[in-house]
Amino acid sequence: MTQATTDTPFRQVAVVGVGLLGASLGLALKRRGLAQHIIGVGRVGSPALRIALERQAIDAGATDLLTAVADCDLVVLCTPVRQVLAQLRVIAGALAPGALVTDVGSTKRVIVEQAREVMPAQAVFVGAHPMAGSEKRGPEHARAELFDDALCLICPDTHTPGAAVARIEALWRGVGMRTHCMPAGLHDRWVALVSHLPHAVATSLVLAAQAQPEALRAAAGGFVDTTRIAAGDIDMWLDILLTNRDEVGAAIGELQAHLGRLRAALADSDEGALRTHLAQAKAARDAFMKARQA
Amino acid sequence: MTQATTDTPFRQVAVVGVGLLGASLGLALKRRGLAQHIIGVGRVGSPALRIALERQAIDAGATDLLTAVADCDLVVLCTPVRQVLAQLRVIAGALAPGALVTDVGSTKRVIVEQAREVMPAQAVFVGAHPMAGSEKRGPEHARAELFDDALCLICPDTHTPGAAVARIEALWRGVGMRTHCMPAGLHDRWVALVSHLPHAVATSLVLAAQAQPEALRAAAGGFVDTTRIAAGDIDMWLDILLTNRDEVGAAIGELQAHLGRLRAALADSDEGALRTHLAQAKAARDAFMKARQA
Repeated sequence: MTQATTDTPFRQVAVVGVGLLGASLGLALKRRGLAQHIIGVGRVGSPALRIALERQAIDAGATDLLTAVADCDLVVLCTPVRQVLAQLRVIAGALAPGALVTDVGSTKRVIVEQAREVMPAQAVFVGAHPMAGSEKRGPEHARAELFDDALCLICPDTHTPGAAVARIEALWRGVGMRTHCMPAGLHDRWVALVSHLPHAVATSLVLAAQAQPEALRAAAGGFVDTTRIAAGDIDMWLDILLTNRDEVGAAIGELQAHLGRLRAALADSDEGALRTHLAQAKAARDAFMKARQA
Repeated sequence: MTQATTDTPFRQVAVVGVGLLGASLGLALKRRGLAQHIIGVGRVGSPALRIALERQAIDAGATDLLTAVADCDLVVLCTPVRQVLAQLRVIAGALAPGALVTDVGSTKRVIVEQAREVMPAQAVFVGAHPMAGSEKRGPEHARAELFDDALCLICPDTHTPGAAVARIEALWRGVGMRTHCMPAGLHDRWVALVSHLPHAVATSLVLAAQAQPEALRAAAGGFVDTTRIAAGDIDMWLDILLTNRDEVGAAIGELQAHLGRLRAALADSDEGALRTHLAQAKAARDAFMKARQA
């Protein structure tokens, strides 16, 4: 990656999907002068395009994906994972020579595999996972600072040209992110443990509490924090779980093993085992936060 | 409960344990003029008493529990649950006629049972669980506002005189809390689901992520929030788990059932079951937050 790639703005960018991430990306690209013209692509009849236009996150709105991407040198797919899969197939034949395509999908293996299969020779796909977001949805909550200092995981395929990877890395750095390149399969294993498993757990905690609905009257900060992400978008999370089901299943198994041991220690009043569980978890959590703040 | 009970300050109060909760209680009692003289009781050689004195959370420090409580009309045990059990036994014979005793323990059944067994006829114990706190420890983090607007669950025994319950309710309301009276057994079931299970899960999430320590580089807000409480005090949580082991075990079982169904749905790519899981959890979480904010 050279500095030059950061400084060269894209001429015409299609942001496909103008929800929280897509509209925030539009705002961030404009703030940094990284795009001359941004076309937002949305659904017919959805208010998202109008809101994104009003907020000046995009310069123009379009509902026909094929037409919108035809003259772009950058296409960013900001839709749930299974829509990214479908859209890659749709746009493949319409991309301009030299076009770059990236995405914001939270799982990467199936997307990189799909791109390998359908992308034409004259364009390049470099998958990305900007780890920024909120349980709030929609362009009305978009902000240019959404990506600042957050991590963007970038998953080139084995054959991806280095120059294209560098340009996509520069794009995400340009909107404020730190970047890290890694294989899609490892990406999916990592996020299964630190993102998808917490979601599976947060939703399950909410459902478990329904065993005694009145108990929610006693719920305090601990419950609020551990279940916050259970409020996330259903369609987005359905796609994530379905496209990373092996790794999420394995991660749930990992957690179940710890919970099983904890339950056995409780049944046996095994003070030593309980103390070890609490002490190891606290030490690892404290070390994690220390590393994060450094 | 009558308003009069709120307005009558206690003459001499022993706050046993001057950590975050004890020292905050001292500050709150003084702010509201609810105590004429506060004796903090701490361990020999611990800096907590000195810090609590410097912060004027207490008027005097003592290390001998028996002497400290002898002339008090209120004793508040602000120690981990198993210390509360031991201290109830120690102070029983030394309490002044008419003395009230309360506590801040996060489990209530074993404490109420212990009080029933050891409390003398001339004093009354009314167990309390002020649901306020932080993963930060010690009197250096104490603040008078810690209890404001939080819920205090109060667990009288079947024979507890109504006037004593009213005076203890007035005490916790006096420092800013909402109060709710309930049987100790039901209290322990509620908090198992909404507090102790989240702790078991947060700690287990941290340990599960250790399967792939590098993955923590990709941990973002979701992981930070779901695991925040894993940083909590080890001794406090050990006592909580050991003194509520049946209910916590049952709550873990409840969660494991949901996780097991989720894992099966992933293995089967059962989109309907996954969507139902996500949608029911989001609906319940959204309803919970709406009720909480109302």
